[in-house]
Amino acid sequence: MSKKGLLIVISGPSGAGKGTICKELLNRNKNIKLSISATTRPPRKGEVDGENYFFTKKEEFEEMIKNDTLLEYAKVYDNYYGTPEEYVIKNLENGSNVLLEIDIVGALKVKAKYEEAILIFILPPSLEELKNRIVGRGTESEEDIKKRYGSALDEIEQAIKYDYAVINYDVKRATDDIEAIIRAEGCKMMRMDKIIKKIF
Amino acid sequence: MSKKGLLIVISGPSGAGKGTICKELLNRNKNIKLSISATTRPPRKGEVDGENYFFTKKEEFEEMIKNDTLLEYAKVYDNYYGTPEEYVIKNLENGSNVLLEIDIVGALKVKAKYEEAILIFILPPSLEELKNRIVGRGTESEEDIKKRYGSALDEIEQAIKYDYAVINYDVKRATDDIEAIIRAEGCKMMRMDKIIKKIF
Repeated sequence: MSKKGLLIVISGPSGAGKGTICKELLNRNKNIKLSISATTRPPRKGEVDGENYFFTKKEEFEEMIKNDTLLEYAKVYDNYYGTPEEYVIKNLENGSNVLLEIDIVGALKVKAKYEEAILIFILPPSLEELKNRIVGRGTESEEDIKKRYGSALDEIEQAIKYDYAVINYDVKRATDDIEAIIRAEGCKMMRMDKIIKKIF
Repeated sequence: MSKKGLLIVISGPSGAGKGTICKELLNRNKNIKLSISATTRPPRKGEVDGENYFFTKKEEFEEMIKNDTLLEYAKVYDNYYGTPEEYVIKNLENGSNVLLEIDIVGALKVKAKYEEAILIFILPPSLEELKNRIVGRGTESEEDIKKRYGSALDEIEQAIKYDYAVINYDVKRATDDIEAIIRAEGCKMMRMDKIIKKIF
């Protein structure tokens, strides 16, 4: 069955737990491939090209921008980060679902370029919990924590632009929600009509 | 949590197995209530008012039509059949999901009146299987079977107007699909935004 895969885009404020949820989702579903970003920043110790990132020269990256072969990109300080379209599209056409964990600006760019993308926003279960999780990292100064908390609230306001919201009461439940979304999206008439025509 | 319930409308050609799937869905989910139709036909032996149907006098039914308190209705031979809006809305507002097993014409009327309704079309896995299931009932003449088969194909053409298509490869899998649809629909941003506003 050559049904096209789904592009699943997951965002959420820091402290919402999206990293853990994405990991659980990938562990459970061998048919979901994590999208690999391209970056011009040099590899860190242990990072593998084509696995953690596609490590790319600046000129190559700017060539990709020029040729419009990135689903989205951003410049952070002096480095580019972006999502090469080819890797994503190739996997989707092979019938794999592709997972993209990305910030809101990037997610909305992806949706603008690839309308079928499914945008899922992960939320912490409460304000207290959000605060606890940000503090709980124990790696940041009080000022950083305040900044993170403030920008998390700003981000939550943007959630309304997403297709789905998943509240992270616990990782299992949130991952179950995302699996249900993926299964349901696969049953959407716009994705089933070709199969129906083929059968009948 | 006073989250509003979902109105789930299930249709499909005869032989698709929707009755069995609906039964399984209700067995698994105590939070799904089967909508009860009103009818002017007299109760058959063993049928209970308010359980199998709301048995209604013709004048009462015509009053409901006049007052626009039915989600949909149809006249079959001399009898009216319809879906009283009050029972459905009351359950939805109490947070129950409501299941409506209904024909295509009725389903599209419901959607026109209650846009949030989720329309799911159940399909047999193949033409052969459809034929087998219609024949397998063993209760009909060859002519009836041909008629049923023809009208099933006509109905499948209408499937495109539904939100979701579920292929009944087997009852468990089809019911899992519908449960995923219900869970995913509950995560849709338009249904989550109030909860998000409340938390944050």
